[in-house]
Amino acid sequence: MKIAFNGYEGKLRASFAAQSMMRSLGARMVRVAPGEVAIEAPVRAAEFGQQHGFAHAAVAFAVGDSAAGYAALSLMEEKAEVLTVEMKINLLAPARGPLLRAEGRVIRAGRRLVVVGAKVLNVDGDTATEAAVLQGTMIPIESG
Amino acid sequence: MKIAFNGYEGKLRASFAAQSMMRSLGARMVRVAPGEVAIEAPVRAAEFGQQHGFAHAAVAFAVGDSAAGYAALSLMEEKAEVLTVEMKINLLAPARGPLLRAEGRVIRAGRRLVVVGAKVLNVDGDTATEAAVLQGTMIPIESG
Amino acid sequence: MKIAFNGYEGKLRASFAAQSMMRSLGARMVRVAPGEVAIEAPVRAAEFGQQHGFAHAAVAFAVGDSAAGYAALSLMEEKAEVLTVEMKINLLAPARGPLLRAEGRVIRAGRRLVVVGAKVLNVDGDTATEAAVLQGTMIPIESG
Amino acid sequence: MKIAFNGYEGKLRASFAAQSMMRSLGARMVRVAPGEVAIEAPVRAAEFGQQHGFAHAAVAFAVGDSAAGYAALSLMEEKAEVLTVEMKINLLAPARGPLLRAEGRVIRAGRRLVVVGAKVLNVDGDTATEAAVLQGTMIPIESG
Repeated sequence: MKIAFNGYEGKLRASFAAQSMMRSLGARMVRVAPGEVAIEAPVRAAEFGQQHGFAHAAVAFAVGDSAAGYAALSLMEEKAEVLTVEMKINLLAPARGPLLRAEGRVIRAGRRLVVVGAKVLNVDGDTATEAAVLQGTMIPIESG
Repeated sequence: MKIAFNGYEGKLRASFAAQSMMRSLGARMVRVAPGEVAIEAPVRAAEFGQQHGFAHAAVAFAVGDSAAGYAALSLMEEKAEVLTVEMKINLLAPARGPLLRAEGRVIRAGRRLVVVGAKVLNVDGDTATEAAVLQGTMIPIESG
Repeated sequence: MKIAFNGYEGKLRASFAAQSMMRSLGARMVRVAPGEVAIEAPVRAAEFGQQHGFAHAAVAFAVGDSAAGYAALSLMEEKAEVLTVEMKINLLAPARGPLLRAEGRVIRAGRRLVVVGAKVLNVDGDTATEAAVLQGTMIPIESG
Repeated sequence: MKIAFNGYEGKLRASFAAQSMMRSLGARMVRVAPGEVAIEAPVRAAEFGQQHGFAHAAVAFAVGDSAAGYAALSLMEEKAEVLTVEMKINLLAPARGPLLRAEGRVIRAGRRLVVVGAKVLNVDGDTATEAAVLQGTMIPIESG
């Protein structure tokens, strides 16, 4: 695994800031390292809930997919951007939070495709329990 | 495949109305039939976009997963509610809309698990093209 | 969707014949059309069974994945070969056969990736029931 | 996570021995612990190969799925047997072996469903590299 260039952190943060979805969820990128990215977001059940008052599965998907995607992007060429090819999520427990923490990582960085994984944790003070696990594929695209 | 009871449409609509996520996305349940549900939502790139101005993959996931989940619920017992066990999404094209239409269907309704599929379409006037396909598993839970 | 070249059927049949796995399973390619391939194999529980005497899930995977892969290959360039990037299978019923029939199809043929689906049927005389559904991604590679 | 009963190892080994597929592949269960099982099998390209002389993706699936399934079974009730609900595999590299080693583990053991993961390694002497990763769901069934 290689770091494509030194300035990857700035590139990731700029891309993250450009995602209105992350802003609407109140998400923050709390860790950036080569091949590893963590994102945290509060559970806002009044806006993004399912019918039982927990976060909708799509919120766990959103933070998990983004953490995995930015983990992939951290290992891509300087000019590349990233798209999700496919993503699979297994839901282990309701996303009750109060904080969700998604930890994305690169499983294999190929030239044409990057295989990624992520887990989403319910964080309550010092306690973190798994709410979801994701496994998927990212593809580099040329930035326009 | 069987219809669990006659009043399933009212039950689905009540559950859908209780999902703040669907409301925040501006989503509507536009078709309800035994084993088949369609949901439509506008692409609101300023709120739920990714970095290129299309809807975030999580929006396609949200409407696809919900359409599939309610399709499953339409065939469950009267008192059952539904949870997503796992869901896999393949993204075929950017979710540019301007309208997203998710069509969920039951593939196999078992007593313990319901296997579902969904597709998400970009709808622009009379033109509809596939943006994503989903395949997953739903589980009935007792309502509280 | 386009047909890459006229001789795709011969290419698919030659590739299929080179798969010792298909031969060991007793599988035959029974239908080849642009973007659609069907494969049939008997259930040989004494050789490829699980602990209850049905075919192992890997047999359903083998014929479903191959049917999907050759469906993808039928739409690729003349010199391309095909590899599975990822595949997801939902098992609907035991693979009891006595004949398994896998029907693969292309969902979206892109230049860089091809998204595919397949279903695997238990065929007993005139009766066919679904045993599994698959959804995955294929990638063209240069033949060596 | 709990161990359902002390005799789980004997139960797993008896079930494994009853799988003709594992025998045909030449597979052995080389590690059994609560929630963790490893299976090894040689690459027999002349019998179970794809068109380039590596093991067919279905072989990686077979050993990965079985390792994950038996990891799940190790945590189930004494009388339970196990079935795969769904499984997703990402292929990272050709299964060239010469030995394949599948390491299955339980991610979450619920009463109704068990979420599992597995990785499949190419083992060549002292070198092991990842060939595939799997993520899926197992369900307990009553033994007959």
